[in-house]
Order: sequence, then structure tokens, then C-alpha cells
Amino acid sequence: MTPEHNSARHDRDSVADVALALLDEVGLADLSMRRIAARLDVQPSALYWHFSSKQELLAALSDRITAPLRAVADDVLPLARRVRDALFTYRDGAELVLSTSALGLGSSYAQSALEEALRRAGADDPQDRAVALMHFILGHATLVQQRMHADSYGAASPAAGDDATAGLDRIFDLGITALAGSARSRSAA
Amino acid sequence: MTPEHNSARHDRDSVADVALALLDEVGLADLSMRRIAARLDVQPSALYWHFSSKQELLAALSDRITAPLRAVADDVLPLARRVRDALFTYRDGAELVLSTSALGLGSSYAQSALEEALRRAGADDPQDRAVALMHFILGHATLVQQRMHADSYGAASPAAGDDATAGLDRIFDLGITALAGSARSRSAA
Repeated sequence: MTPEHNSARHDRDSVADVALALLDEVGLADLSMRRIAARLDVQPSALYWHFSSKQELLAALSDRITAPLRAVADDVLPLARRVRDALFTYRDGAELVLSTSALGLGSSYAQSALEEALRRAGADDPQDRAVALMHFILGHATLVQQRMHADSYGAASPAAGDDATAGLDRIFDLGITALAGSARSRSAA
Repeated sequence: MTPEHNSARHDRDSVADVALALLDEVGLADLSMRRIAARLDVQPSALYWHFSSKQELLAALSDRITAPLRAVADDVLPLARRVRDALFTYRDGAELVLSTSALGLGSSYAQSALEEALRRAGADDPQDRAVALMHFILGHATLVQQRMHADSYGAASPAAGDDATAGLDRIFDLGITALAGSARSRSAA
């Protein structure tokens, strides 16, 4: 086996595929380079053929999570719901996209699509509003996703029960509509 | 030394003091019960005299971080800025309060103060709006705090540089004002 063949045994895409499946299994806190490498049956150092750092690998995962939003043309509220649902697709997806975005890494498919939707709706400050919408969506989705995960193994307090979760969709819609601004409200009316 | 004396060597407050100082040093991901116990020079099991779980200990830290907001009477925007700044006081403070809130644990000093401010301003749906404001503040503050930390050791991409951070206060104010609703805008005008 030539070194060339060896380094080509996995490409960026196949490493990201495996890492994303592992994220869904173990969660972000336990997604180590060592663990990804073990799953691929390679040494951790082999991952650095494809990604210069763990952050760069996480950014690739963030791009995969948000890729369904790429150039989606929709009104602000249904688009925002699609962003939220894309974040929910993988365990800790919202937290991963939030962290990647905090470091200025990864693509901004979701934010760009929201900015375009705001422009079409005639909102003032579409660029700033798109960032504010992303901060709200990421905060909301991270919180809801952690609560859902805790509920799934019974760790949440009774105070975070049915009553608390039932209102979350209503709060999401209220937040999105308010942040989209008055022009958006007009066009929705 | 009697067992009574032994268990009373540290009380809830002194454990929380040490844990909060350690959070600031090592960050949330590395704040383990083992590490807190080592700092206190006790066995990890001794911590469970005072806190039934790590989550309960984290909830106590969350309460300490948000305690300065308890019953603060102020207008929505200055109050929201105080909430953000309280989250910034300790490393990963925003992420810790977000996780605690996701599990329905801890007190809701910040949310209650925001709800009261919205009521005074005559906002409609003050209860839902206070939750939406918290989701925005927690998402925004978690993202900004992770970026600031990355900047402090040069890990952020150049794309997340001065330009990106300079606009964050403006985006925060825009988000808060929009989420506070029209009644708030009237009272601010």
C-alpha cells in the first residue's frame, strides 16, 4: 500500500459522514478526534490529512447541518422554522452550529437565506436583523434541544414538563415575528 | 473528628464559591465534580452531601450568576444589558445559565425581572416575551462569550475580527427592542 493510497483511504466527505453519525450517538461533549479516528479505524493523526483542526472538522459538520437552507427562498417565519428544524436533525446540532458561528467558521447558509427573506419582505436593516434572528434561533434551539434530550432520559425537572414545552413553538413564532420587524408584519398581514 | 464535623467542613456556599472560581479558570467543559473536589481537598463523594447531582451544583452556580438581577426594576433595554453583563462575569456563564434553564432548574431572577419590566411598559404577552427575550439574550451572550474567549487565545478566524465584534452591541439592542414589542418602543420614544 503506497502512502498516497493510505492517505486517500478516507476523504473529507467520508470522515465528516462518520463524525456526524457519531455526534448523533454520543453528543458534542464526547465527540473527540480520538473517538472519530477509532470509529474510522485510523490513528487520530490521520484525520489531520483532511482537517487542520477539530474546529475545522466541526465547521464541516455545521455546514452539513445547515446545507438544506442554502439559497432557500421562503418567507421569514417558515424559513426560520426550517432553520430550527435543520438544527434539530442531529443531537446537539444547535450547539455545534452556534459554536462554529461564534468562531467565524463555517458557511452562513441559514443567515444568508434569512437576510434575503428580510430583503424581499422590505425589512429595514436586513443584515443586522438576520444576525439577530440567528442569535435568537440558536439560543432557542440549543435550549429546546437540551431540554428534549434531558426529557428523553428523564433528567429534566418536573418544572420543565409538558406545560413548559407546549409553549415553546408559540414563543419561537413570537420571537421570529418580532425580530423580522414591522415590514415583515405588514407583508404577513 | 466526628462524621458530623467532617461533613460540615464545607457548606453549600463554600463549595459553590470554589466551583465558580474554578469555572472561571477552566471553563464549563472541564468543570468536573472530581476537579471541584480536588480543589476542596475532599473526595468527590463529599460533594454529594451538599448537592444531589452535578446539575444541582451547576444550578446553584447559575443562581449566583443571575442573583444580581433579582427584583431589579429598570426599563427593558438597560435591564437586558445588565442580564447580558451578568452572564459575561464568569467564563462560560451564558452557556451555564442556558443549560440550567433548559433543564428547568435554577431560579429565574433574570426572566422575572424582564417580565416585570415588560408589564410596566405595557407590552402585550409579557410572559411569553420575557421567555423570548431570555432565549435571545442567552443565544447572543453564549455566542459572543465563545468568540471573546477564542479571540483571547487567537483561535477565532480573521472573519470574526474587529468588524464582526463591533456590530454586536448594535445587534443586541436591535434584538431587545424588537422583542420588547411596540408598547416598549412607544414608552422609549
